[in-house]
Formats: sequence, structure tokens, C-alpha cells
Amino acid sequence: MNYVRNAWYVAAWSSEIEGMKPFAITILGEPIVIYRGESGRLAALEDRCVHRLAPLSLGRCEGDRLRCMYHGLLYAPEGKVVEIPGQQQIPPRAAVRSYPIVERHSWVWIWMGAAEAADETLIPPAVGLDHPDFILGHGQLDYEAEARLINDNLLDFSHLTYVHAESFGAGEEFASTQAKIEPVERGIRYQRWIENSLGSSSRKSATPMDSYMVYDFLIPGVLLMTGGVFPLGTAAECGYGTPDLSHAVSGTTFTSQAVTPLTAKTSRYFFSWGPHRDHGDEAVRDILMGIAGKAFAEDKVMIEAQQRVIDRSPGAQIMPTAHDKGVTLFNRLIEKLSREERERVGIAA
Amino acid sequence: MNYVRNAWYVAAWSSEIEGMKPFAITILGEPIVIYRGESGRLAALEDRCVHRLAPLSLGRCEGDRLRCMYHGLLYAPEGKVVEIPGQQQIPPRAAVRSYPIVERHSWVWIWMGAAEAADETLIPPAVGLDHPDFILGHGQLDYEAEARLINDNLLDFSHLTYVHAESFGAGEEFASTQAKIEPVERGIRYQRWIENSLGSSSRKSATPMDSYMVYDFLIPGVLLMTGGVFPLGTAAECGYGTPDLSHAVSGTTFTSQAVTPLTAKTSRYFFSWGPHRDHGDEAVRDILMGIAGKAFAEDKVMIEAQQRVIDRSPGAQIMPTAHDKGVTLFNRLIEKLSREERERVGIAA
Amino acid sequence: MNYVRNAWYVAAWSSEIEGMKPFAITILGEPIVIYRGESGRLAALEDRCVHRLAPLSLGRCEGDRLRCMYHGLLYAPEGKVVEIPGQQQIPPRAAVRSYPIVERHSWVWIWMGAAEAADETLIPPAVGLDHPDFILGHGQLDYEAEARLINDNLLDFSHLTYVHAESFGAGEEFASTQAKIEPVERGIRYQRWIENSLGSSSRKSATPMDSYMVYDFLIPGVLLMTGGVFPLGTAAECGYGTPDLSHAVSGTTFTSQAVTPLTAKTSRYFFSWGPHRDHGDEAVRDILMGIAGKAFAEDKVMIEAQQRVIDRSPGAQIMPTAHDKGVTLFNRLIEKLSREERERVGIAA
Repeated sequence: MNYVRNAWYVAAWSSEIEGMKPFAITILGEPIVIYRGESGRLAALEDRCVHRLAPLSLGRCEGDRLRCMYHGLLYAPEGKVVEIPGQQQIPPRAAVRSYPIVERHSWVWIWMGAAEAADETLIPPAVGLDHPDFILGHGQLDYEAEARLINDNLLDFSHLTYVHAESFGAGEEFASTQAKIEPVERGIRYQRWIENSLGSSSRKSATPMDSYMVYDFLIPGVLLMTGGVFPLGTAAECGYGTPDLSHAVSGTTFTSQAVTPLTAKTSRYFFSWGPHRDHGDEAVRDILMGIAGKAFAEDKVMIEAQQRVIDRSPGAQIMPTAHDKGVTLFNRLIEKLSREERERVGIAA
Repeated sequence: MNYVRNAWYVAAWSSEIEGMKPFAITILGEPIVIYRGESGRLAALEDRCVHRLAPLSLGRCEGDRLRCMYHGLLYAPEGKVVEIPGQQQIPPRAAVRSYPIVERHSWVWIWMGAAEAADETLIPPAVGLDHPDFILGHGQLDYEAEARLINDNLLDFSHLTYVHAESFGAGEEFASTQAKIEPVERGIRYQRWIENSLGSSSRKSATPMDSYMVYDFLIPGVLLMTGGVFPLGTAAECGYGTPDLSHAVSGTTFTSQAVTPLTAKTSRYFFSWGPHRDHGDEAVRDILMGIAGKAFAEDKVMIEAQQRVIDRSPGAQIMPTAHDKGVTLFNRLIEKLSREERERVGIAA
Repeated sequence: MNYVRNAWYVAAWSSEIEGMKPFAITILGEPIVIYRGESGRLAALEDRCVHRLAPLSLGRCEGDRLRCMYHGLLYAPEGKVVEIPGQQQIPPRAAVRSYPIVERHSWVWIWMGAAEAADETLIPPAVGLDHPDFILGHGQLDYEAEARLINDNLLDFSHLTYVHAESFGAGEEFASTQAKIEPVERGIRYQRWIENSLGSSSRKSATPMDSYMVYDFLIPGVLLMTGGVFPLGTAAECGYGTPDLSHAVSGTTFTSQAVTPLTAKTSRYFFSWGPHRDHGDEAVRDILMGIAGKAFAEDKVMIEAQQRVIDRSPGAQIMPTAHDKGVTLFNRLIEKLSREERERVGIAA
């Protein structure tokens, strides 16, 4: 798996980690147990007891500690064994890896790289479910596919015309014209104006308007998208650049999406979506979530089928098209960052 | 997989390929999409878009063309990409493999070898469901077993006495005596007389008769069988050779069967069976299909179990018996033809 | 799989091997068919016909012989082919392996090593279901885990405090103190006194008593456990050694358990349990079996989860604790015996 390790991966919704109940997840192939101790503190440990390799996620929370329920070894949230039943001395090596873990924007984020390099400023600025400006629904899907294929999907929106012909309802012109794509810090930015349009199924207008969408796609695989509908002529007025979103007359929504590689061939996809308070209410949110539910199922069918084809096609080459600019920029960035990580480890060794 | 490539493989019943609906199948491990375009024309393409390896079988027929429904590349029935949304130029290498495909005898046949070698005269002379002389039922079964094991089964009918003790109901003497087996063009011919018999469960007589069966088993794995019941003494009169089938007094049926290797360890088995119009009607066909349903399920249980034993027995040797003449002749033929194919490719390279 | 071959493995309950019905099992990765012929005699053969590798377990018993129901080869209970339909001569190599097989203590035992080394005195002295002194229930579980992990579980009872907190109900002190563990012929013996106790969920007392348990764990993976409840002070009186079990005032039970490696990663676990006639009746047996059902399901959850962690942790090391004495002694014994077997084969070759 060629993924960046020095990055924050979404491991769960905050609400999934209940108090005193260990939660198991595998990220980048590493089994991890997350738990929220008595004090409310989150911890993320390697999910494998040092004694006989039983999973700690079958364990029992005791205060802020976690006890392996096979033979009773007790772990501190930093990973050290602090009790071995029937044995006085605890060997210094009796410890599992502890992962930096942060709760923010309604997600639980885990840093998969070197703990000393963990930098909370690198957490992508997602919009949490409790954000005052947006009314958000949320969901998640597990994929039998590598995360890279889902990232690729989210980096080339020309698929909306085909995969989502029946859901998002973008027309032919969406695929036949190019969006503006440029690199940003740890990711790419995608912007596009659709002029003189009655909107799509998720953003309809009674009269022709200019519609704008923008998203950042950030390391390790987080999409943050917004936009809005503007009076006819706004696109040209701002030179097809970035409008002042507060001038949108309708249709402003926000979606945060995160792709987490579980194993080499499985992934978890988290998403929220909903309208700005000024442009919608709970009913609009429910309509949007209905559309998203249909559309994300369409992606899943296509991407899992694509994965199966890839698996039986060793050596098959891809052939990028003009729409692949975002895909190419982002994958080169992954390549560069993960190479730098490997080199850094090489120097340290 | 040691199979002959320069051969016509049954890919489907004609009726399975509806108009404008892509149909996915894997033959010899190669994913193939078959579709019947607006004009009625059949096409068979490699089921893997050149762009990002999505399956074309999730695509949409447009006229006689097929559009990949991931990012919209459009394919001609010969395999060339004729449209890339958002891109003017189409690279010359933008094409997938196209397979020769022919519809005949109610089956859709695909040539898996070099396209320039495709020779329609090599299509085995099966009897289609619309044949005026026979009233045929049909069915199919998917196997978790390599095609070779099903071929072997069909090449040694001594198994009727044991596997089909409860269905076809051939007696002990069927296994204890030998059939006449001889090579024919691209296959073997199996003939046997059963003298002075009241028949088996699928061909009963009120008085003792001579019963004759004959089948050809042809490359790549097609069984074509007929026979009939004759007056006592006919076997001896014709020297236990080939009778004039038009002299049969009853019991003439025809069965066409085809074994298609999907992957190295999975196969699809197609079959039809039914009486000659002079010797039966729809009711007889239904009785025969009931017997076949039971018998072919018996084969499947045995052959899939055999496959599992083989899989856990690396290096285990078989021990041929006197009944294996047909098996041996046919497998040698496969060996010879596939070796010649490899050598031809070697010379061409 | 590093297991001892010169040992008797439990293949089935006696009652599972009905007359004239072949029974399939895989032991140490070897497919075996067991059958009880017309005379009542048991036979165990390699489950793979010499002809085309079909499983003999799909065969038909004929007297004390077994016929392969693919093409009819007939096997004697010693493994030799005695009939090949349609063929006069039987090649001398037409034979499958025959395994020494013995029925004892309600179990069918198979010797997996060299037949000439089979020694019935090595059958562990389990208590059969028909034993006059005990009222026994029985059951079995299939594991998706290697047998070694189940053995390890049974060799370290400190897990009772954690895995079985809700079933056997051993308290904290059970895990915090050590049992007496010593080597015995082909195994280890585990003994422990619990003084001044009201018992556990499976052995409750109205007044404080001394409770004793003892088990042998024997090659290849057989646990034989008994014990009882004694007047307060008995533990000290006998120097915390072995009491005279006939002096137990209550709570004497017997459990026989056997772990059989099916394949490298699957196992079958057989068990019986129940009270001594003097200390219980059918109702007590049913209570014990209810507790065992719950407890053995708890073990299965933990051990199969442990197996999955091990499978995704190549190279991960275990860290034995003070409670692992029995585990270590037994695994060293397996190591020693299997190494001697390999050396013996080396000398013989």
C-alpha cells in the first residue's frame, strides 16, 4: 500500500466511540483498538496483546485503562502494560504501540506516522455535524476496494455524467468541458462554473442561474466541497474565478467526505452533506441525503467492479485522459510525500 | 490452464443476449462483454476499459456501440475507442480486444484464439432448440471445478452405473463391458450397443430390444449424442457397428452439451435434451429433463468434491483404467493442439 | 503444522460412525474416510480414489468393503483395490493408505503416524459416556483456528478469570495465584487447591470448603480433568498435594476433552462433562453442560479472534508470563517428539 503515513486518517465518527466500549478498526492494515476511558479521554492502541496476540478490542475498559480479557494484562492509554496477573515484574518491552488520536469536526482522527511528527494543524478543516451554519446528515460505506480507487473517483468529477446519470443528474456538457484544477497545500482544488443553468437534481432553479462548485481534496483522502447558485452573469463577472460565497442566492451546501484505507483492498468512506441554514432546512437535508445515498451506491458498484477487473488483470496499464489532471496531481503528491517518508526513515536508520 | 485457444467456446444461449443489454462472462480467465447492438449485431469485447480498467459490462449500448459508464469512453464493436468525453484526440492505442463471435444452433460461440484463424466450419454441429426434428428442453449449471474434470466425466460413461445409479439407471453390465471408442476429426466418437434390454430409466421398452447410443465429443468440450431402440437382433446384424438411425423404432433423442472453462477452477455447463418428434412429445421432453436435472446434479456433487480433493493433493497421480480410452485420446488431442498453438506463436514471435 | 504424528487423534464420537455410512474427516490436513462395515469393523482409509482422485467418502459400503461411486473401484478395509469394473487385472500399486483405528471411551481414535508404531497403550485414559461412575453430557465445536491455540488455552487456566468471568466465574485470585504444574508421561499435570471457598458457578457450597482440581493434558491434545470439594482444612492436611478423591464430599465431576487438528488453521474440539453419580444426577449434568456451552463459546470467540490477529501479524512475537509454565512444557514436548519422529524417518530413509 503506497499511502502517506504522516497524516490524520478518519477512524470513526465521534459518536461511534461510546464510553468504556473498545472499538476495533484496521487502518493501513494495522489493527487498532480505540476506546474512550472513564475520564472521557480517547486512546488508540495496537490491537494485539503482547502476551499471546489476542485482540485488545475484546477487552474491558477499567478507568482510563484497557484490560486484555484473555489472560488479564492491563494496558495504560500510552500502551504500556501496567499489570500481569500472577506475575510481579513487568518486562520493559511489555507495551503496544499507541497512536496519536484527536477528536475534531465530529470525526476521530488517527495519526499513522511517527508519533513525534504528529501535527494537529494538518487535520483538514472539515465541517462537523454541530457546525452552526450547516444542517448536515451523515453516513458511511465499507468498500471492497482499495482507497486509491475511491480517491481517483472523487478527483475526477466527469464521472457524474455517467455513473450518476440517474442521481446527481449532471448533463453531457459536464463531462465534455473542463473544470479548473490547481494544486493547494497538501492537495488539489477543483472549481467549476456552470453558466445559465436550471441546476441539477440536487440544486434546481426556477430561472437560469450561474452555479459554482469548489472542493479541496486533501491528504490523506478528504474532500471538502461547497458552492452555491448566483445571479446570471456572476461567473463572467468574477472572471470564472472564486466568487464571494456569501453572495450566493441559494443552493449553498457543504459536504465533508473521508476515505480511509482499512487494508490493501478494503476501505471505509465517511460522508456528511446538507444545506447552509440560509438556503435550506431539515427537509432539504433529507432530500440531499436521499440523492447521496443513491449516488454513493452507484459509485460503490462501479469501483468494486473496477477493483475486481484490476485484480484479474495483472500488468494492465491505465490510459489517462484530459479529465485526469486532478487524479494525476494528487497521486504524484502521494508518491512524493510517501517517498520522502521512506527516505527519512532510511536516514534515521 | 491447458486449453485449446483456436476453438469456438459456447458463451451463452442466444436468448441470454438481449438487445442493448451488455452480458458479462469470463472465458479461459478473460473477462468478456457480449452485447447485441441496435442492428441486432453481436459483439464481444475485452471487458476492461482502457482508461481506468472499469468493466464495460456495466456500460450502456448506444446503437451498435458500447459506452463505458464510468467516464464515458465510447467503443465501436471492433474494439476501438471512438469518443473520449472532454478530449479531442483519441490515441491510436485506445482499443480493447474484439473476439470473433457467431450465433448458431441456439448458442453464442466465441473464438478465443487468433482472430485471423477464426474458422466457422469448426463450430461443432450441435442441434439448436429450433431444430424441426427434435423437441428440446435446455438448462445450464455453473461448476466450482475445472472444465477438464467435466470433460473427463463426459468421456467415460462407465460412471453412469455408479454416479447415476438412481437417475439414468444403467446397470452393472454397463460398467463391466467396453464401448467402442475411436478418434474423429477434432474429437472422439463413442458407440455402444446394449442388446436384449428393457432399456434404462430414460428409455424403457415393453419387450427386449437392442439399444444403440453414439456421441461425438469435440474440441473444445462439446458432446453431441443420439441413438435409438431397434428390433432385437439389429446389433448383431450390423456387426455392432453404426445402424441407420432412421430405422429406430423408438427412443431416438438428441442432447447437445458444452463445457466452457470460465476460470482455471470454474466452468459453465450448457445442455439441451429431448426426443425426436417421431418418438416423443413435450411430455417425454419434460420427463427427460427431470432425469437430466437429477443426473447432472449428481455429476456436480461428485466433480466438485473431486476438485476439492485434487486441490489438497498436490502431486497426487491418477491411475487410468480400461475405461479411460476416450479420456486419454481426447486429452492427448488437447495437448497436441495447444502445443502446436504455442509453437506457432513462438515462430510468429 | 508441527504436530506429533505417532499419536492417537480423536476422529469422532463412536455414535457418529453409523453402520454402512462413510464418514469424512480431515486430520493433520489428510482427508480420511472412516466407515463401519457390515461386520461392525471400523476402517479408516485415505479419502482419495487412486483412479481419478474422487473422494471415497461419497462411496458405498458393500459388506466390509467400500466402493468409489465415481467409476466403481472397490476397496478392501486394508486399502487395496479389489475390483476395477471393466478391467481384469488390478495393478499392485492400486491401494490407498489405511490408518490404524480404535474405538475406545466412546471415541474413535486414529493413529496418524507409521502404522507399525501404532501402540494402543498410548490411548489417553478418557472417561467414556457409558462409564458407570459418571453421568456425562457431550458436545463438539469446530474452530477456525489452529489446534495449538486451543491447546495453549487449555494449558493455562488463568484465562478462566477473564474469558469466563460470566460463565465458570473464577474470581480474581484464581489468576493472581499459581497452580502446581509438573510433567507427566506424554503430557503435563495441573493441580490446584482453592481453600476456604464457596465454590464457583459450576461447584457451589453452602459453607466454606476446600476445593481441588486436577487435570492431565496429554499428547496429542487430550484434557482429562476431575476434582472435588473437601472439608475445610483438607488442602493443608495433604500438604496442598493430591487428595484421596473418594473422600470428596461433593462436587466430583469428570471432563474429557480432545483437540484434533483438521487442517493447518481449523480444528475440532470434542468434550464431555458431568458429575460423579455420588455427587449429582442428570439435572446437575444439564446445568454443567449449560455452563460449558456458554464457556466454550467464549473460548471460541477469543481464540478465533486471536487466530485472525496472528494471521495478519507475520513475525509478531509472543511474551510468555508466569502462568505459561504448562504451555511451555507441553509445547516443548511436542517439539521434542516431532523432532524425534523426523529424525527417525531420516535414519530410516
